[in-house]
Amino acid sequence: MGKGNRSFMGFDLKVVLMVSVALNVVLISRVLYKEDDESEIGGGVCLESGEAQVSRRRTGFDGDSSGTDVLDGGAVIDLDHGNPTMYEEYWKQMGDKTTVVIPGWQFISYFSDIKNVCWFLEPEFAKQAIRLHSLVGNAVTQDRYIVVGTGSSQLYQAVLYALTPTDSPGPMSVVSAAPFYSSYPLMTDYLKSGLHRWAGDAYNFSTDEPYIELVTSPNNPDGSIRQAVVNGDKGILVHDLAYYWPQYTPISHQADEDVMLFTISKSTGHAGTRIGWALVKDPEIAKKMTKFIEINTIGVSKDSQLRAARILQAVSDDYDSSGNAKKNEQFFEYSYNVMVKRWNELRAAVDKSQIFSLPKFPPGTCTFSGQTFEPQPAFAWVKCEQETVDDCESFFRGHNILTRGGKHFGVSPKYVRISMLDSNNKFKIFTERLSSMKF
Amino acid sequence: MGKGNRSFMGFDLKVVLMVSVALNVVLISRVLYKEDDESEIGGGVCLESGEAQVSRRRTGFDGDSSGTDVLDGGAVIDLDHGNPTMYEEYWKQMGDKTTVVIPGWQFISYFSDIKNVCWFLEPEFAKQAIRLHSLVGNAVTQDRYIVVGTGSSQLYQAVLYALTPTDSPGPMSVVSAAPFYSSYPLMTDYLKSGLHRWAGDAYNFSTDEPYIELVTSPNNPDGSIRQAVVNGDKGILVHDLAYYWPQYTPISHQADEDVMLFTISKSTGHAGTRIGWALVKDPEIAKKMTKFIEINTIGVSKDSQLRAARILQAVSDDYDSSGNAKKNEQFFEYSYNVMVKRWNELRAAVDKSQIFSLPKFPPGTCTFSGQTFEPQPAFAWVKCEQETVDDCESFFRGHNILTRGGKHFGVSPKYVRISMLDSNNKFKIFTERLSSMKF
Repeated sequence: MGKGNRSFMGFDLKVVLMVSVALNVVLISRVLYKEDDESEIGGGVCLESGEAQVSRRRTGFDGDSSGTDVLDGGAVIDLDHGNPTMYEEYWKQMGDKTTVVIPGWQFISYFSDIKNVCWFLEPEFAKQAIRLHSLVGNAVTQDRYIVVGTGSSQLYQAVLYALTPTDSPGPMSVVSAAPFYSSYPLMTDYLKSGLHRWAGDAYNFSTDEPYIELVTSPNNPDGSIRQAVVNGDKGILVHDLAYYWPQYTPISHQADEDVMLFTISKSTGHAGTRIGWALVKDPEIAKKMTKFIEINTIGVSKDSQLRAARILQAVSDDYDSSGNAKKNEQFFEYSYNVMVKRWNELRAAVDKSQIFSLPKFPPGTCTFSGQTFEPQPAFAWVKCEQETVDDCESFFRGHNILTRGGKHFGVSPKYVRISMLDSNNKFKIFTERLSSMKF
Repeated sequence: MGKGNRSFMGFDLKVVLMVSVALNVVLISRVLYKEDDESEIGGGVCLESGEAQVSRRRTGFDGDSSGTDVLDGGAVIDLDHGNPTMYEEYWKQMGDKTTVVIPGWQFISYFSDIKNVCWFLEPEFAKQAIRLHSLVGNAVTQDRYIVVGTGSSQLYQAVLYALTPTDSPGPMSVVSAAPFYSSYPLMTDYLKSGLHRWAGDAYNFSTDEPYIELVTSPNNPDGSIRQAVVNGDKGILVHDLAYYWPQYTPISHQADEDVMLFTISKSTGHAGTRIGWALVKDPEIAKKMTKFIEINTIGVSKDSQLRAARILQAVSDDYDSSGNAKKNEQFFEYSYNVMVKRWNELRAAVDKSQIFSLPKFPPGTCTFSGQTFEPQPAFAWVKCEQETVDDCESFFRGHNILTRGGKHFGVSPKYVRISMLDSNNKFKIFTERLSSMKF
């Protein structure tokens, strides 16, 4: 045995310790991963972001991977997508009050309300969406047309169709300030449409021609509060407000934009239900959006609208005299508290590792809750601060954490986007790994 | 008073009789129409056809009309669309067995089955679709990939996306033999895609370039059994088999095509549920179709898939030992009998009026039921035989019956397509009016 080295059964003690710790990490993460799998529908791999996140990579929904992938000895934690399984626990606790029952003979017709511009909009869904906006105070619904969509990605495509004239000589430019939601380019260009084309970062765009600017606020991926940046004469603005809810950001005002997009997947977490809605000022735009959805999918499933209505109703009821929920059982109170806890844990882990940074947000007072707090977005926008790490996504992948790199959002690969909405177990493994990550 | 004319209170008796009859027709039809309205969700105007029928005209889903339109004194009967409300009565009789119950915490995830190429396909829906095909014997499901869609219109667009290379210099031609389903041109061209373009009637098409031919069998609008007609070297066939079910046509064989499209709206009548499915041989095509649906709507609502699964299961159960349905309670038996009755009534009315004709179909033996019968399609394809009537749609509109004219299907305006799947009351008014229609 060497003189300066402590040993155990003839092995260098440092090596034994490292092996032992590595084995523990593998075993613990496998146990946690298994629990996680069992608590989720459809296995452990998670998709998605700001609604409509599309990955062209290796994850499950490309059909070439599975939730139990092991890359280098530990369980893979997929936080690439924004699958909002965090909310499952809350809805479990709520029991039957959001259960929907649909008899086989109902909702057979294509039509929901033929007097409405959006003829496939279920009146009950419209009513509950308006009621929730009125409760939260995050958007004006008076004198607005509601167009329901199969998730807000369909509405995004509907609004592009509605805003681009069919008789123009070439496609209209569509821009958004970088970092922009990674699905916008693909959703704009996948059919090589002659109506619209992706023109990239709004900061680098200037034109005398008409254009569409997407304003995502709070922004996906970085959580920032956004305004239009091009400010050209012929710009048409579309506001994607998927994350403008009080668990993520202080509600500062009633948004009052021409076209505002929302989705149930980010407001209440029901991503599998595929329901989004648009609040639209101009009836002609609402009509043309409706026409798109008519051609694209002949309306929107009644079953999903009914389920969404039931869920929104339950959320509102708990703030009414009609509900008898305790304060911490109210949806936004509960989910706000989960986000507070997660962001505290994330910031502590980032501080501990000392090799990452997070955006800083100014605090604001929420008109809904009355509380003053810093935004606590649905995604962490993490920067790898080490000079030698050029590709932060690869760095995380080396630690078996799947993230989405900055290049997908039109910025430097030194950034990654990480979902904050996954299950408790995954989030715990993630922060534990993060805090011990060194260069 | 004139000598040769009988009179009543000073009026010509013929005129009095005509006025009286007209008044009765108006009153009766209004009463019936009101009953009809009350028995339907969303009012009386009806949309749709072969899935994905899109009208650019005056009906409710353009938001500029209502179910109680009155054009010239009588109630308007809208048989333009293929809204399958006929089936409502059957499902009412079936009671609870097709009721679906979805707790609020379930199906939150975007994912259904990450191991499947179609990662958003609910395994239970896939199972029940396969089971039903196996029971009916209308399509091969072995070694096929199932891609679920938000109705078969989304699948149509998905398959165009899947079959057209992104690197080709120009859009690929898409054709179908006239009369073709009236939504194909619009669904192909509405986004001015650089991938594909509508090239019209397959009978007038010849090329050395690659093309896609849609084979709709039984055909919408005319119910005929179809084969490919171009037969070029580089053709890719897509089979729209929405109506290949034993209530509409004898099942002659198990269809065994590369891409086959089906929809719940035409098989069981649940149009409001927006569920279609494709049976696909080539995994690469299934993958690319899945990718389209991922970009377009991030998958397909779980709620709707579960409901569809429940309904398909109930249909199959009634043919199993697990069900204890009487023969006339079995879905295809019941709906076959309704179609027999309706086609008999339609043919009788057409015979009586003597100014219309209907297609003649050769009888066939159905491998499912063992019965020999003539096809009894979901649409009547009616020709106005009078020489002086050039526009059959206008002629019917003059009798307050909304139909879809031949020009929408790429043929002469002397033809109209009329839905055979609407409610009993509407169908009754329709055949009564038809039998009394004279030039």
